[in-house]
Parts: sequence; structure tokens; C-alpha cells
Amino acid sequence: MRQSMMFSPTLREVPSDAEVRSHQLLLRAGFMRQNASGIYSFLPLGLKVLQKVEGIIREEMENAGAMELLMPALQPAELWQESGRWYSYGPELMRMNDRHSREFALGATHEEVITALVRDEVKSYKKLPLTLYQIQTKFRDEKRPRFGLLRGREFLMKDAYSFHSSRESLDEVYNKMYEAYSNVFRRCGLNFRAVIADAGAIGGKGTHEFMILSDIGEDTIAYSDTSDYAANVEMAEVVATYEKSSEAMKELEKVATPNQKSIDEVAAFLQMEETSCIKSMVFQVDDKFVLVLVRGNHEVNDVKVKNLYGASVVELASPEDVQRLMNCTFGSLGPIGVSDELEIIADHAVAAIVNGSCGANEEGYHYVNVNPGRDFTVSQYADLRFIEEGDPSPDGQGTIKFALGIEAGHIFKLGTRYSEAMDATYLDENGKTQPLIMGCYGIGVSRVVAAIAEQFNDESGLLWPSAVAPFHVHVIPVNVKTDIQREKAEYIYQSLKKQGIDTLLDDRPERAGVKFADSDLFGIPVRVTVGKKAEEGIVEVKVRATGESEEVHIEGLYEYITNILQ
Amino acid sequence: MRQSMMFSPTLREVPSDAEVRSHQLLLRAGFMRQNASGIYSFLPLGLKVLQKVEGIIREEMENAGAMELLMPALQPAELWQESGRWYSYGPELMRMNDRHSREFALGATHEEVITALVRDEVKSYKKLPLTLYQIQTKFRDEKRPRFGLLRGREFLMKDAYSFHSSRESLDEVYNKMYEAYSNVFRRCGLNFRAVIADAGAIGGKGTHEFMILSDIGEDTIAYSDTSDYAANVEMAEVVATYEKSSEAMKELEKVATPNQKSIDEVAAFLQMEETSCIKSMVFQVDDKFVLVLVRGNHEVNDVKVKNLYGASVVELASPEDVQRLMNCTFGSLGPIGVSDELEIIADHAVAAIVNGSCGANEEGYHYVNVNPGRDFTVSQYADLRFIEEGDPSPDGQGTIKFALGIEAGHIFKLGTRYSEAMDATYLDENGKTQPLIMGCYGIGVSRVVAAIAEQFNDESGLLWPSAVAPFHVHVIPVNVKTDIQREKAEYIYQSLKKQGIDTLLDDRPERAGVKFADSDLFGIPVRVTVGKKAEEGIVEVKVRATGESEEVHIEGLYEYITNILQ
Repeated sequence: MRQSMMFSPTLREVPSDAEVRSHQLLLRAGFMRQNASGIYSFLPLGLKVLQKVEGIIREEMENAGAMELLMPALQPAELWQESGRWYSYGPELMRMNDRHSREFALGATHEEVITALVRDEVKSYKKLPLTLYQIQTKFRDEKRPRFGLLRGREFLMKDAYSFHSSRESLDEVYNKMYEAYSNVFRRCGLNFRAVIADAGAIGGKGTHEFMILSDIGEDTIAYSDTSDYAANVEMAEVVATYEKSSEAMKELEKVATPNQKSIDEVAAFLQMEETSCIKSMVFQVDDKFVLVLVRGNHEVNDVKVKNLYGASVVELASPEDVQRLMNCTFGSLGPIGVSDELEIIADHAVAAIVNGSCGANEEGYHYVNVNPGRDFTVSQYADLRFIEEGDPSPDGQGTIKFALGIEAGHIFKLGTRYSEAMDATYLDENGKTQPLIMGCYGIGVSRVVAAIAEQFNDESGLLWPSAVAPFHVHVIPVNVKTDIQREKAEYIYQSLKKQGIDTLLDDRPERAGVKFADSDLFGIPVRVTVGKKAEEGIVEVKVRATGESEEVHIEGLYEYITNILQ
Repeated sequence: MRQSMMFSPTLREVPSDAEVRSHQLLLRAGFMRQNASGIYSFLPLGLKVLQKVEGIIREEMENAGAMELLMPALQPAELWQESGRWYSYGPELMRMNDRHSREFALGATHEEVITALVRDEVKSYKKLPLTLYQIQTKFRDEKRPRFGLLRGREFLMKDAYSFHSSRESLDEVYNKMYEAYSNVFRRCGLNFRAVIADAGAIGGKGTHEFMILSDIGEDTIAYSDTSDYAANVEMAEVVATYEKSSEAMKELEKVATPNQKSIDEVAAFLQMEETSCIKSMVFQVDDKFVLVLVRGNHEVNDVKVKNLYGASVVELASPEDVQRLMNCTFGSLGPIGVSDELEIIADHAVAAIVNGSCGANEEGYHYVNVNPGRDFTVSQYADLRFIEEGDPSPDGQGTIKFALGIEAGHIFKLGTRYSEAMDATYLDENGKTQPLIMGCYGIGVSRVVAAIAEQFNDESGLLWPSAVAPFHVHVIPVNVKTDIQREKAEYIYQSLKKQGIDTLLDDRPERAGVKFADSDLFGIPVRVTVGKKAEEGIVEVKVRATGESEEVHIEGLYEYITNILQ
């Protein structure tokens, strides 16, 4: 393509409302423009990247046995009422009326539409399994759209849905999708992790999020430094073992700890390690109250408390409830002398404490020489704390590190959540009616574009990996008014194009400095500068990512460039 | 692709709510399903056709120098208020509020968005001309959605917009687009005409519609039987010459014509040819009244009356107005003795009438031996009638025939309609601010799919032209339980695929009759049946469109098939 005909308005200034690098650079390099809060136009260069990502996704979906279809954005409210989400989705679901006052949702996702479609057409186990996907525009009225394409209100998504007559079949397709998703993100050049996520009521290993590692990520990932284990920090299982000291138990003693509230204050006051302190917290688990104990340097993970009880809601008890139940405030809580009605559960680490300390349920006092089992009874020891950096990885390989991530993909075993609500059934081998078993699998396509930009940039602009770059090669004659430069540049442009290399020719009558600055902003992997040595048939080839450049004879250019791109 | 994994549910029955062939067959062959009135899902086969049409359009747009971008569906109301269309578009424009009660339109078209985008980025004549296009989902709340994809409420459109600093530049791009559109429809295999359409206030040859010829078309096209001249019937210029008889003028006479109202009644009663009768009609042209005369066998074309006066509104006068102005009813109108205040204009054919007849402006009476010029004064003779079949073509080649057409494309010289309203200007060579000159160019992509289906079908199903067929070849083993048939079919499938031919393998354990019926419905151009002679390496190749079949040896299959497909 000739740059003189391209619409890629670049900006020298950093747009004031763009907080993160990807947002700033995609605007500055003319890859996109904002139309309204969270709503963007992809300009030609941005669309090219988007289409390359789409292409990779299509290939991987086809390889995974998924077939592409295209469902509408306008979805009748009745479908969402059947699934119940019309009422539960909240204001993120955009709604409207047609000219006959019929209610519609603007598709935020397509579980309802696909379930209705398959329900009407698939009646027998013989037609299963079935996996369908689409690449389509989604609408979600985010409360705080931000970071450009990373959290928008209208965005492009790949969503896939699978239908099964058995859990085994779902597992099989789920695993294929796991591979396909890994391939997509790897081929996009991204540094990512597939992390175990919270499957809620479904439980088990029924869901993974694909996280692009980034300092601006909104989720914390716990990952192994040597294996591919990764989980959302809430979900990571702790398998640490705790050595119990052989020290003899001493006599329990109540000591005054005036004005010492937090664990570190108390530990310092008592001249103890935080690891010997017992932290006590009261949680409301659905409609009962539970006292949860962890070691002083650990944090209670309420998701684990919730999963232990299979509860719907777990939250910290209110100060009023704590006062009523324990007759004291948060800072003085402890497990000794607690009414039998309040169940005590503890993290495994607590069992290893010898001669520790805990609150005395009395303002300004703590117990020391506390020994679990002797001084109080724990009804159940379990993994109840957040994993920490340095903990052993739950898969037995390496130790845990933390990173921040941007969620770019999510695969999920839905089970019969939608098929039961919407009466989507099939006849099994015995002629018996069964609800369809479903999986769903999403990738934020436009979010992936931003995530790549976020991972690949430097102070001069973007640095696209070859597989998703808008062009592979940027040919720049230093001075288009010089016949020989213009002609050689044209020749290189034409011959590279003919050989199947996506090439952009900067044929604009601009100063060299402007052209180089634009080129750096665009982030095309290889730049071919046609300057004074063009007379001798020599041009400069520069690799955008490394900054390395070399003089190359035009005759050997194609080979030289394909080597770089591979 | 393997049919066992494909989602293409076929129907044996004709869906009761589908009126036209394309709608019936696209449903029956499992190319699409309805989600709501005028809203459809494209199933895998339908999407494949849609994507092939998209591919052709992209190629032709790139060749025409247009660059692809992607604009959003959600459009702030403010933009539509700037152009004024927020108020004038009516209920076809779908509107909604976001969670902050801000108003949005769901894009019915993108003139406002693109004008705002280019306005903010293009400031100088040096950046012009610029042509941008997108392939994107549009929303229009049709009052009566019908004919499936032909008139839907959510549909896929290619819309392009060009920006210029001169009319000449607009003309140049307009002509390129005319060529590109012709190429698109020709490559889709369609029988179409580029017709001159009504450009409204812009006038001249500023707009063409691309009409797919079809009996279910809603527009009448007048076209030449020997040249490529075509126009909307309202727009076709009449260049007929009328020979004036040399008969001597007779004396004007008023005769009683009791109860004879229509032209044919009067002509029969008076024993005259209709061609000698003068038909008189009163029109309101903006705020004045005009008496329009045409020959008895002709019809007044109000668009021509409108264009003659450059008027905004032209409509037939009300009975009350006629009574007040002429003191009679419609059936007795005539030009003789009319007040000077009422201007009389006439079609050229009227000038050639000698000793004709007309109404006497008196119930039950007509004049005979009427001679224009002698008996009444015509202020202006002009082309005021509808063209008719048999008229000479206005380009001087051949005679006019009529056909019905489906509008599938429209190219339009917008001029400064949007740039002036939205203050989209550039600086010209002299540093003077000028409004951008614009063109817009649309193709109904999903409508094209339906139009192809409407032109290419028979009683057994669809008949896709190769360029847009979902697959090129359908391989069908008669009995998949026979090892040799299954294996040979698999071999053919794999080798054709490897050679770049889109191939579908019917690997389902269905009866041969079911498979053949589905295959005919799908309309894949070439069918390869692997039957008993597979043992000898012989298969049957059938051309779907002609029904011709031949036995071919597997070794020569690729060559045989590529010959057919070309």
C-alpha cells in the first residue's frame, strides 16, 4: 500500500485522556480514534492488526473442530427472560425498544441466542458434539470504560459454544479449546498464562482465564517459576507444609497489650515472630457465623472459606455482629473461651504453632503460650489462606511468583446452566430427554490488539510481532524528489509485494525526519531505507524491535528480510 | 469440511412464512435461521457465501483505491443532530440510551461518523482525495421486514465514502466506483443493471443504483435491448419524436360525452385513437398549481414535473382544489378556456396532435378537433411522461424494455450536504476554507447473497455460481459402510483439499437419497458421487446447474473439476 493514499493520522503529542501505553500509542500512531466513551473506530492500520488476529483465531478454531457462524447483535428480550439474565445482568446489558415497542438486548454475549438456535435444530445425541463460533461485535455498557480498547463498550469478540451429550465429551472439547487458545496467544507473540479461575458453583477445574502479563493488568496471577502452573491468586491452592517446633508447651498466660491492635504491633510488643501469632476473624457464611484462624503473616482467602462450606455468600461479620457474638472488637478476637455455637476453622499453618499468641476477646489483652488443641478446639483444618510469593507451587514444581494480568480469553464449562433454564434438550441413546451439556469459550479480539500493543512498545512507538503486524516491511525513500531513490523504492515495493510480503511504501513528499518518526510509531517490523547509496544498489535494513541495522544489496533483500521475519 | 461436524439443518417442508424462493431455500438448505422479524443468524454455509461476497468486494474496493476501516454501530445522537437527520430520519433509525441516559443511534449508515472523523484529521487539500470503506453491520427498523435477507432490520453492508477538493476529483472516484461495483456484481454471477437513479436536489447524473434483475424486485427498470443504458423508470428520459399528421385542422366542436370518464371510454365513444386524446391533470408544484398535458396513452411522470420546476414537492391537486380552480372534476379537465393564472405545460407528444380531443371543463362534455396552439397556449413543451416499453432508448441504441430489479448497490455524489451541515472543511491551495466534497457508495452485502439465491435456483434447491459457492465440490460416498467407498471418498476429499479446492465430504451415515437431496438443496456446483464403481477407480461427476453427469477416473478428477469450475 502507498502511504500517500492511506488514512493514518499520527499525533506528536500524547493524548491527555489516554492513561496507558497501548491506548496512547494506538491513538498517536493513527491505528484508531475515539467516537464516544469506550467506543472506537479502527483506522486502516488498526484494522489490519485486528484482521490478522482474527485470521489466527479462525485457523485455530477450525483446527479445534469449531465451525463459524454469525449471530445478530439485536436479541429479543424474551430469550434473556428465559435464561433469567434479563433481570440479573444489570445496566451493563444495553437494552432498547423497536418501533413496535418490543424490547431487545444488544448482545453482550450469545449464550441465549445459540442455545435457542441449537435447541430448535438438534434433537438427537447423534448430532452431538457440536462446536460453533463467531467473530462478532459485542456491546457492554461498562460503568467506567478505560484504557482504550482494553475496556470498551463496543468491541469485537470471538465467542464459541459447544454442545454435548456427556461430561467426557465436554472435557475433550474443553481441552481442545485450551490448546487452541494457547496457540492463539502464542502466535500473537504474547507473554501469557492460562490460569485456573473461579468456576463458582460448577467447581473443580471447570474454567481457565488466559491472562496477558502486564503491569496494568487488573488481576493478580500466582504462577510457578519453573512449570506452567498458574492460577488467579484467589484460586491458587496452598500446599505448603509447616514444621512444628519441638519446644515444650508453656503455661497459658493472659497479658496486657494496651493499644496494640494489629498483628505487627502485638508481635513487636510481645517480642514474638508474626508466624507465632494467631489471626482470628469472624465471617458470616450464608446465615451462620464462623471464626477463621490463620497465621499472623497470612491473609484469609474468603473464596476458600466459601468453597469449604459450598456457600453462596461469605463476608466479614459486621462490628455489631462481632460485638454481640464475642463481646469485643476486631482487634481483640481470639479462639479461647469461645461459645460452642461458633464453629472454629483454621488454616493448616495454625496447627504448627507452639506457644503462640492470640487475642483474649477482651480489649487490651492477649494470651501468650497459646497451643491449639490444648487451649481451644478447631473443628476443621483446611487450606484457607491466600497463596504468597515464595510458597511452593501446588503442582510440586518450583516456587510461586506473582504477576498482573489482562484477561484476554476465558474458557468455561457451563454444564446445563442455560439448557435447563431454556429447555434445550436432546434424546439420548435410550430415547430419554436430557438437557444439553454446554461449554463456552471467549476471546476479546480487540482487547488482544491492545494487549499486544501494551507488551510491545518502546519510547518511539509500537513494535508489532510479525504475525500481527499491519505490514511486514516499511520502504522509505529518504528523498522522493531524487529520481533514483524514488525509482529504487518503487522497485523494492513492487517486488516485495509480488513475493507475498505485506509492504508499505512511504511515497509522501515529507521530510525524512517526519517519515522516520511515523515509521517508528507504526512499529512495522522491518524498515528499508532507500538513501544516497541507492545508486550503488545498496539500502539500509533496520529491525524495529532491536534497532539493529545493516546495509544490504537490493538483489539480496528478499532473502535477508524473510530471514528476519521468521 | 466434514458434513458430520457441520451445522446445516435442512428442512423438507417449505417454511410457511417465507414468500420468495431465496428466503425459502436459504432456510430449507440451512444457510440461515430467523431470530426475530427481519433479524437472522447466518449458519456455516450461509456465512461462507457471505464471506466469499465480502472477499470479492474487498478486492474491488482495494483496486479502486479505497482503504478499509471499521466504524462503530453505536453513534452519539449529537452527530445526527449536527447533520439534522436525528429529526428527519424517522422511526427507521433505531435509538437507545446508555446507562447515563445519553442518546445513541444504532448506525443505519455512517455519513455522520465518517464526516466527523475526517473533519478532525484532514485539514489540507494535500491529503485529498481520500476514499474509505468498511464492511459492517447496519440497523434499520423497517416497517415491514420481508423476503428474508432482502429487507431485514440488521444486515451487513459495505459502505464507502470519498472526500475531495474538486468536483472533477469526485467524478473520477465515482467512475472508479462505478467500475468496481460492476465488477463485484459481475463476479458474483449476477444479471444486473447499473441504472440512473433520482439524485434529488443534486440532479444530473449524480447517482446510480445497481439493480439485480428479478421478478420479485420492487423497482421497475427501463433498459435498452441492445446497449447498457438503464434507468429507474421515473428517471428515464424520453427522446421519442412524434410525427405530426398533415391533416387539415377542423373546426373546434364541443360534444356531449355522457358518463364517459376515462381516456379509453372517451376515445371509444368518440371513435378516436387514444393517441389523439389529450390527458389533462392539475398538479400542485410547491405552492402553485400547474395544468399538465400528455397524450391519452401516456402517463405523467411527476418526477419530471418536479425537476422541470426544481421544486421540492409535486403532488396531484386535491378534488377540492380542482373544483375551485376549474369548476369541474378530474374526468372533465381540459386546457381550453383556462384562466391565465394556471400555467399549462405539455409533453412533447401533445404538440404533434392534430384534431384531437380533450375535456371541456364541464361535466359530460368534451371538445373534438382540438389543435394545440390554435385552441390553447402551452407555456412550455418538455419531456413530462413516463418512458414505455418500445420507446427508443435515450442513448440512441435499441428500444426500451422493462424489468423488475432488487436494489443491491447505490453510488451517490453527496456534494457538500454533510460537510456543510457538520462544518467539515479543508484549506485549499490559496489557504481558503472550503467544505469537503463527498461521495458515498453502498452495497447490501447480505442482500447480495439473497439476490444470488433468487437468481440461481431450481425446484430442487440452490445453484451457486462458483465464485460465491460455499464449497466448490461435494463428495458423497453412496454408502459409508462400504470400506472402499468410504476410503476412496476420503482420498478424493483430502487430495482436492490439498489442491486448493473447497470441498465438503458427506461422511454422515445417512441414506443415499437423503444425502443427494441435501446436496441438491445446498447447490454446491460440482458433485462427486463415489458408488459401486469406486472399486475400478471410477466416480460420477455431476454439474449441479445443468444436471449433466459423467463417469470420471479418480486420477483425472482434479483436472476435470477445475475445467468445470472455470
